[in-house]
Amino acid sequence: MHGSGTTPQRKFGDVRTIDWRDGHVVIVDQTQLPARLQTIELTSVDELVDAITGLAIRGAPALGAAGALGVVLALNEADREGWDDERLAVALARVRAARPTAVNLAKGVDRATSQLTQGREAVLHEALALLEEDVAANRSIGERGADLLDELLRGSPTQAIRVHTHCNAGSLATVEWGTALGVVRALNQRQRLGRVYVDETRPLLQGSRLTAWELDQLGIDYRVVVDGAGPTVVARGLVDAVVVGADRVAANRDVVNKVGTYPLALACARAAMPFIVAAPESTIDEASPTGSSVEIETRADAEVVEWSGIRVAPAGARAFNVAFDVTPADLVTAIVTEDRVIRPGEPSSG
Amino acid sequence: MHGSGTTPQRKFGDVRTIDWRDGHVVIVDQTQLPARLQTIELTSVDELVDAITGLAIRGAPALGAAGALGVVLALNEADREGWDDERLAVALARVRAARPTAVNLAKGVDRATSQLTQGREAVLHEALALLEEDVAANRSIGERGADLLDELLRGSPTQAIRVHTHCNAGSLATVEWGTALGVVRALNQRQRLGRVYVDETRPLLQGSRLTAWELDQLGIDYRVVVDGAGPTVVARGLVDAVVVGADRVAANRDVVNKVGTYPLALACARAAMPFIVAAPESTIDEASPTGSSVEIETRADAEVVEWSGIRVAPAGARAFNVAFDVTPADLVTAIVTEDRVIRPGEPSSG
Repeated sequence: MHGSGTTPQRKFGDVRTIDWRDGHVVIVDQTQLPARLQTIELTSVDELVDAITGLAIRGAPALGAAGALGVVLALNEADREGWDDERLAVALARVRAARPTAVNLAKGVDRATSQLTQGREAVLHEALALLEEDVAANRSIGERGADLLDELLRGSPTQAIRVHTHCNAGSLATVEWGTALGVVRALNQRQRLGRVYVDETRPLLQGSRLTAWELDQLGIDYRVVVDGAGPTVVARGLVDAVVVGADRVAANRDVVNKVGTYPLALACARAAMPFIVAAPESTIDEASPTGSSVEIETRADAEVVEWSGIRVAPAGARAFNVAFDVTPADLVTAIVTEDRVIRPGEPSSG
Repeated sequence: MHGSGTTPQRKFGDVRTIDWRDGHVVIVDQTQLPARLQTIELTSVDELVDAITGLAIRGAPALGAAGALGVVLALNEADREGWDDERLAVALARVRAARPTAVNLAKGVDRATSQLTQGREAVLHEALALLEEDVAANRSIGERGADLLDELLRGSPTQAIRVHTHCNAGSLATVEWGTALGVVRALNQRQRLGRVYVDETRPLLQGSRLTAWELDQLGIDYRVVVDGAGPTVVARGLVDAVVVGADRVAANRDVVNKVGTYPLALACARAAMPFIVAAPESTIDEASPTGSSVEIETRADAEVVEWSGIRVAPAGARAFNVAFDVTPADLVTAIVTEDRVIRPGEPSSG
């Protein structure tokens, strides 16, 4: 990471995953978790793009905030460095494209950019409004998701609901609170949460590093499983529902999310278990007709064939390191947003 | 590993995965691959059980050989140490139970034990016969599997067939040659093989360490993917078939194999792609009515939450480290053995 500064270690809940402070973007450096909770200040577009591509900041909603604040960062840098409009446009385009699959990033850039003619303060105001809306949306998603699980599972009002999740769709994927983990947290607040299972989520282990850390900080009972075991957790009935986030939802309600999501949806369909996607409206991309029209990011081979710089596979081994998969709409029981519950399997949905 | 001795580095094809030499069991130490091809000599039941539980030797067919040769090892040790019959029986029971899910291990012990009354030489003769039969069975499985893929894919006689596999069902899982990889090798010999995709197979990476190494040694074009990406490789049509091995096939043709197999079968069913299990007859356990009647091994949490002894998940994180999953018979296109092709989806099969 190329952050300009670091702050001393903090505790969960002390800081937002991404925020604006003293003219800088401040993020929790997710490459350092779970070992330490450390924030870094980003003062330039280069630093922000590095943080996004290096996954110091990640998760579709958090990337939306990063996109919006990135515009402010670019404006400040343009002032400092005397950029012309063309140079500024290049910088904004770089932020916008730093993670192609996450539609929120581009949407965040576009939303803040829409205020450019109103001046820097209007852009900052718009970006900060996006952050506040994300926080509010997460709380709403959590409550609506918990209500939905109650309805779908038709259990007794005191029955504990056990949830399987994938990757990290928690506080660390958003400004704060979380989407899929927001549902888990709402169940926990209602004292209705049973054990949570989380896939480790190779290659970058967002499950065993980030989600496990959040669950640990929240005092929630959980188990980590390898990604190949998630469908077995479902088939064995060790959970009552799968709840995941989304990087993008296509117009037809296909869900693009971290690779390893699709097998869980297949397993849920086989087990007649709810497969719930918890994501803000901003994740829905009506401009992408289906999942197959979404550009899917592939990443470096080294993430798969090495471990902390040490080679695991034979020298010369190559990987196909696809970062996301597409879950067809018919396998999705419901998409829970801050405004509604979309049921893709039903004809009148959406 | 507690092997009594080591030999210098060798090349693929020089040595069998498991063999009997100069009164010892000699195995390729799979914990050292792909960094080095090293054999170790096992001279006692303790050493053999350690090698099995530590996965220096693994794979259902290879474990069958280990079970049979383990009886000879136990007889020799009983002679040396003056064991009574009870002590011998305890030793045989320990070998038999070292990996509960692999039926071949117990079958190997039982087959060699059946010759106990005929004396040590008869036991050794029976064990060595099992090894030779495994080699012959693998060759037969490979040819039959390649024929079956030809038939199922109905391609042109020159079309390259692209295969996805999981874990390691290669030379290193058998005495030599391999089962699922035996099919791949037969296709390769016929110059009909396209690219092979292999799941890395967490937590112990038998795919990226062992299968990748075998494919590399054979000069086959391949890519390693994380386990969560396997179903996406199928859904995208990057392969023409999935071919895996089995640790046990139940009487109803449910297939118990390395965890992460079931999601591939689900993906194949959705994509109408052949899901082929390549396994010797010895893997079929008519005594287990269904997959759910098979004891599924769970292993240490550390395999999931640590990496080379370094903690990945938060301190205190617990795993559910289930080593195998069950693929229901109706998802299995065919089980190819040395004697026949079983089509579990068809009423008259088996």
